[in-house]
Amino acid sequence: MGNLRNGDKMSQQKPTISRARLLSRLEELGAIGRHPQGGLRRLAANDADREARDLLVSWMKQLHLDVRVDRIGNIFGIRKGTTHGPAVMTGSHIDTVFDGGLYDGALGVLAGLELVETLNDGAIETSRPIAIAAFTNEEGVRFQPDMMGSLVTAGGMPLEDALNTRDNEGKILGDELKRISYAGDMECGSIVPHAFVELHIEQGPVLERDGMSIGAVNALQGISWTEVKFHGQANHAGTTPMSLRRDAGYSAAMLTCRVREIAREIGNGQVATVGKLQLDPGDINVVPGSATMTVDLRNADNDLLEQAESKLQTAIDEIASAENVKAECRKLARFPPVQFEANIVERIEEEARNFGFSFKRMTSGAGHDAQMMARICPSAMIFVPSRDGISHNPAEHTDQDHLENGANVLLRTIIGLANS
Amino acid sequence: MGNLRNGDKMSQQKPTISRARLLSRLEELGAIGRHPQGGLRRLAANDADREARDLLVSWMKQLHLDVRVDRIGNIFGIRKGTTHGPAVMTGSHIDTVFDGGLYDGALGVLAGLELVETLNDGAIETSRPIAIAAFTNEEGVRFQPDMMGSLVTAGGMPLEDALNTRDNEGKILGDELKRISYAGDMECGSIVPHAFVELHIEQGPVLERDGMSIGAVNALQGISWTEVKFHGQANHAGTTPMSLRRDAGYSAAMLTCRVREIAREIGNGQVATVGKLQLDPGDINVVPGSATMTVDLRNADNDLLEQAESKLQTAIDEIASAENVKAECRKLARFPPVQFEANIVERIEEEARNFGFSFKRMTSGAGHDAQMMARICPSAMIFVPSRDGISHNPAEHTDQDHLENGANVLLRTIIGLANS
Repeated sequence: MGNLRNGDKMSQQKPTISRARLLSRLEELGAIGRHPQGGLRRLAANDADREARDLLVSWMKQLHLDVRVDRIGNIFGIRKGTTHGPAVMTGSHIDTVFDGGLYDGALGVLAGLELVETLNDGAIETSRPIAIAAFTNEEGVRFQPDMMGSLVTAGGMPLEDALNTRDNEGKILGDELKRISYAGDMECGSIVPHAFVELHIEQGPVLERDGMSIGAVNALQGISWTEVKFHGQANHAGTTPMSLRRDAGYSAAMLTCRVREIAREIGNGQVATVGKLQLDPGDINVVPGSATMTVDLRNADNDLLEQAESKLQTAIDEIASAENVKAECRKLARFPPVQFEANIVERIEEEARNFGFSFKRMTSGAGHDAQMMARICPSAMIFVPSRDGISHNPAEHTDQDHLENGANVLLRTIIGLANS
Repeated sequence: MGNLRNGDKMSQQKPTISRARLLSRLEELGAIGRHPQGGLRRLAANDADREARDLLVSWMKQLHLDVRVDRIGNIFGIRKGTTHGPAVMTGSHIDTVFDGGLYDGALGVLAGLELVETLNDGAIETSRPIAIAAFTNEEGVRFQPDMMGSLVTAGGMPLEDALNTRDNEGKILGDELKRISYAGDMECGSIVPHAFVELHIEQGPVLERDGMSIGAVNALQGISWTEVKFHGQANHAGTTPMSLRRDAGYSAAMLTCRVREIAREIGNGQVATVGKLQLDPGDINVVPGSATMTVDLRNADNDLLEQAESKLQTAIDEIASAENVKAECRKLARFPPVQFEANIVERIEEEARNFGFSFKRMTSGAGHDAQMMARICPSAMIFVPSRDGISHNPAEHTDQDHLENGANVLLRTIIGLANS
């Protein structure tokens, strides 16, 4: 294990992080990009993102990490191991949505810094190197797709395509990265980790509802997005008898109700949402002539997700036929579920148990950088509770106890992986 | 019966209108206010409305009518009777919606001119005077409410309030009427007719579906408009389990389906429409936090309409309770049904039967000037078929046979009323 300044091997393996230091970094980073309405607006490669990156890099350097930036702007801070094998990586992202909160992404990156500082303070060495990552443009608000930095790292999108994406004003991501001095020269994907573990807020209500402190995330839901357009006949609401109507709005409402039933029928964590619906012409006294809606289906089991998709298609056909309207469908997105590495999930549960924290094994409903990293190395995630399940909102909140617990479980899990 | 130049009493009573002349006037008036996209845009008191009014007045003068304009801009052309009693009135409006067709309103006014010309040609006198009316701002597109000219005539709205209404640009109707020289000096309501009969296109599909040429309109539906706002909880579509959702969009969809059932349960011509629905935030991956929708209920029977309203309220309460959302309701409009004069409706049927035209007794689903006139004198309406039920659209169409038939039934009905 190399040079150790204090204690025996046992105490070296049982360090804990500093809550105060973690909170202080969360606050300092959380002051960057705050807009007058109160939320954070650190969109990928904007000025606030640059300022946040500069602060992160300065912290990494204070912690004696070897800082590298790759061509898509991902930042890595590497702490040497006693051997030269692949690093154990942790991290997340520091970009935010348009009106974001303090913890989404930032927690995972800053808990990484905190675990390095804890190791440094205890002069604890690990066998494998440890790398702290901050991935570019996880939120995908300014440039699409989301999870872009990790996606490119995992080889899921050509670098040039990613660099050529444009924001709403026509600005090119590659130019913007150069402008903020984060167009690095390291080839993307040149660090292939031994393992990847991401600490993140849950962004859902499950842990809070169940009174749990730690989520050991063993899977990430598959996503199926469909746009459905019903074409009926716009007609006078007063003069058109019910029997002669071809009501696109009613068809959309029927499908919305059916979508809820599909979730119930499939069960097993199936969720199904109609979030968007537009009626045309949308007048109080006109039977809607067309209706455009979206259906968001998610399940961690791909077979079940396919069953839900098939039930959706049947429902669309039946409703269109019953109301004599035409239905047009367009697949907007389809990601298969991701299964995280069972060994790492068990390790997370073991560390939570050792601390005496309440924990549960769970599925992530949201997308995360870990799902991309899972393509190239064994990966898993640690969740901490989100108050009222709220995220992507300045009201996003996680209790200090949970922040500290999550960072401690991350610390121990990373130490374990780095010494295994 | 006074001076008659030709024929016996029988032939005087059995004149018929000239199809060619009626069509020619419809075409000439229909060329005014045509915008580049093809529809008519004669909004109340705009330049096209002035031009159309000028043409109408010139035609009235050619037919030796006594032209009067009242303070809300209604135009009346009066043909003397052999006695001085109250006039039998017919007419409608010549303003249009934003993208209107040839027949809505114009048919009723021009069929009035045509019947006068037919009487003039036959030198046929009637006992009572006959008045042809063109009411101001029936459509209510530029200034609200609709049916304004007849409403003021019937004493349902103070003249000053009507004159002070503003359009979207802040222009005042009173000023606009002065600008186009149609702020008359006759007091509103000073002509109280003996009876009022309006010929209008159906604006619905019933006559066409049933293969009928003439509708004898014995009632006009009551209207109940309600805005319903559901307040739930916006949440992540991936991370929020179905059991924890408070989905405002789903609530609105449930209510839309229930509204259709209410129409079925009430039957008896009950129609029920959700024409407008807005979800907020309206993102594909967010459970809707709020939903705002409208419900349009119509029935010619006020008791049944009240039953429908009560079922609607029950449905709103049940849905809000089941989904744990808050419902907020606002009554946007409530007009009781109008019963037209049975004697006049029977007379219309009798005249259609005499001609050998197919006809049916029916209810109007749309609002018309006749419903306001019914407040001050015995009234009824004659409908002719609308192809595909379409109106408020450049595609609005009524076959020439039906136009002619409708004008002939109007002619005979007016003659009958004017001599009764």
